[in-house]
Amino acid sequence: MTSRDVTPTSLNHQRFQNAWPILRNDILGDFATKGMPGDAIDWYTKNLEYNTLGGKLLRGRAVVDSLAILKGRVLTDEEYFQAAVLGWSVELLQAFGLVADDIMDQSLTRRGHPCWYKVGDVGLRAINDACILEGTIFILLKKHFRGRDDYIEIVELFREMIYRTGMGQLLDVLTGPEHHVDLEKFSIERYRLIAIHKSAYFSIYLPIALAMLMHGIPRESPAHEAAMQISFSLGEYGQVQDDFIDFAGSPEHTGKVGTDIVNNKCSWCIITALALSKPEQRRVLEENYGRKGVENEGRVRTVFEQVGLREQYAAYEEETYRRVTRMIEAIPDDEAAPALKGGVFKAFLDKLYKRTK
Amino acid sequence: MTSRDVTPTSLNHQRFQNAWPILRNDILGDFATKGMPGDAIDWYTKNLEYNTLGGKLLRGRAVVDSLAILKGRVLTDEEYFQAAVLGWSVELLQAFGLVADDIMDQSLTRRGHPCWYKVGDVGLRAINDACILEGTIFILLKKHFRGRDDYIEIVELFREMIYRTGMGQLLDVLTGPEHHVDLEKFSIERYRLIAIHKSAYFSIYLPIALAMLMHGIPRESPAHEAAMQISFSLGEYGQVQDDFIDFAGSPEHTGKVGTDIVNNKCSWCIITALALSKPEQRRVLEENYGRKGVENEGRVRTVFEQVGLREQYAAYEEETYRRVTRMIEAIPDDEAAPALKGGVFKAFLDKLYKRTK
Repeated sequence: MTSRDVTPTSLNHQRFQNAWPILRNDILGDFATKGMPGDAIDWYTKNLEYNTLGGKLLRGRAVVDSLAILKGRVLTDEEYFQAAVLGWSVELLQAFGLVADDIMDQSLTRRGHPCWYKVGDVGLRAINDACILEGTIFILLKKHFRGRDDYIEIVELFREMIYRTGMGQLLDVLTGPEHHVDLEKFSIERYRLIAIHKSAYFSIYLPIALAMLMHGIPRESPAHEAAMQISFSLGEYGQVQDDFIDFAGSPEHTGKVGTDIVNNKCSWCIITALALSKPEQRRVLEENYGRKGVENEGRVRTVFEQVGLREQYAAYEEETYRRVTRMIEAIPDDEAAPALKGGVFKAFLDKLYKRTK
Repeated sequence: MTSRDVTPTSLNHQRFQNAWPILRNDILGDFATKGMPGDAIDWYTKNLEYNTLGGKLLRGRAVVDSLAILKGRVLTDEEYFQAAVLGWSVELLQAFGLVADDIMDQSLTRRGHPCWYKVGDVGLRAINDACILEGTIFILLKKHFRGRDDYIEIVELFREMIYRTGMGQLLDVLTGPEHHVDLEKFSIERYRLIAIHKSAYFSIYLPIALAMLMHGIPRESPAHEAAMQISFSLGEYGQVQDDFIDFAGSPEHTGKVGTDIVNNKCSWCIITALALSKPEQRRVLEENYGRKGVENEGRVRTVFEQVGLREQYAAYEEETYRRVTRMIEAIPDDEAAPALKGGVFKAFLDKLYKRTK
């Protein structure tokens, strides 16, 4: 016990942060050893720090938290560090995705600062910087996991998650292109597919699956199949929440203004409203969704209220909470491998339940 | 012997091409199995065909050619197909790099057609398409190499080559940014570093190294070290040729107009001219290199002629041919592994020697 005024959460956060300088030196040291001159190292240092730090590190910390839950005890320093390497690799994957997505979406700010491609003279060379961030993941894995039995499975898991996320990005632009509104394309099946690929795989399944691999639960197992299914439900739930908050959240509380309606996003709100709307309401949605005018947005919002979207959301949230809880309780026992504990998913579910921003 | 009028080269080309429909179906079949809907498969099909085909396939075919030289015989169908999987993976890596580079360089055409990001409504989503092409490499490797002893080494080799190429791209933009001319940044050491990273690793070493791994020559070996060094020399030689042809080649013969001088490229020509120039000539170079005017370009060209760039190039070519030939002859014997044969490099050297386009 310590007398310093720190909660377990902030202690945990600090312990995860402590691994970063070591990994940063691994990465930059490798770069220097490969013969890169000073100006290239300086550029890479900026790329790395600007894009990897500054977020909440939720995905990265989920790796170490999940491993501790699976082991049912505090991790040793060695276990913690190995899990933190994987956690930071997830954060690097996130950084790679954000840099690339921000260029594709022509976004302006990220985490309260200009997007990387908008910084100084970076511009489109940010595409190469994103690719280098992706490559860094495999530098870290090689350095810290090569020789372990699970090395190739971990490498393949990252590769698969990168591929899945790219598929989600492709589905997203094909479904809701900014300048071509066609509500016929929106369906709940398509919505699930996008949510699973753009977020469930990499934000929920990946951290948990990495902890499971480290704990000795092989990839081809009923436990991983169950983990994937629960992750999909949690990923969809989180996406539905994002979408509802984009519509119903107040900017003072959330810190951002909703843009899904004007940007023609394939959102849970429009899909639900389309399913519930009468012909006249549907016509209003078709004529106003995805248009840039304030009045268009207002008319869409009115229909959303008329069809009872708030009640629908409350019902969805309760139903989802119960359904995911049942899925967690039904995780199969597998005598051939260490047990997958429901607690790893419960931690995600409790963070999501009733969130308002 | 066959009575059909085909040269061994065109036969070889056809045999390599024959593997493509199989691999294309692997890739698209995997995409469909992962649950992707028809419009996403259609998009991916276009991405794949537009960007992977249409080139000369030199790098891909070098894998199968090198393996045949190492084995000293015609490959069996099984050996050929496995080598072709790796060859097409190199072509996919090339496709990934070209799509991304063309966006970064804001190029307009590639292989006689619009660059992918300039086609229809593709635009910046080409960034995601490039990432998916990269991911495809590892889909193919997993399908066709998982379970083989050399699987992880092959995966790591591709990852390392992607990383090296990204480093080369970074060095390139840091050294010769389009809008900021500073000839002090140009040096022969920097030039070599860029040539090695942007081209030698992936265009020469990678195809040969893949054939070596398939032939059972382990990565950590004197043979791979020798292969790397010879590849670096060949890569630099090829780059010097590109640079000289950019200056001295006639557009009627080469099919393209040189742009290195106006684009402030860290080219062998400017580095050599700077080293040979008198103070007055250097001043002309400093005042005119990297400027967009036709007159600026003409003044630079005049200095290039005054310092005797053509004679320097002829001497460089002869010296390089002799030096690389000596390196090839000095490849060390290694009794612990199958022999690396100089013929694989000789094939590259002979293709490069005295080329004029």
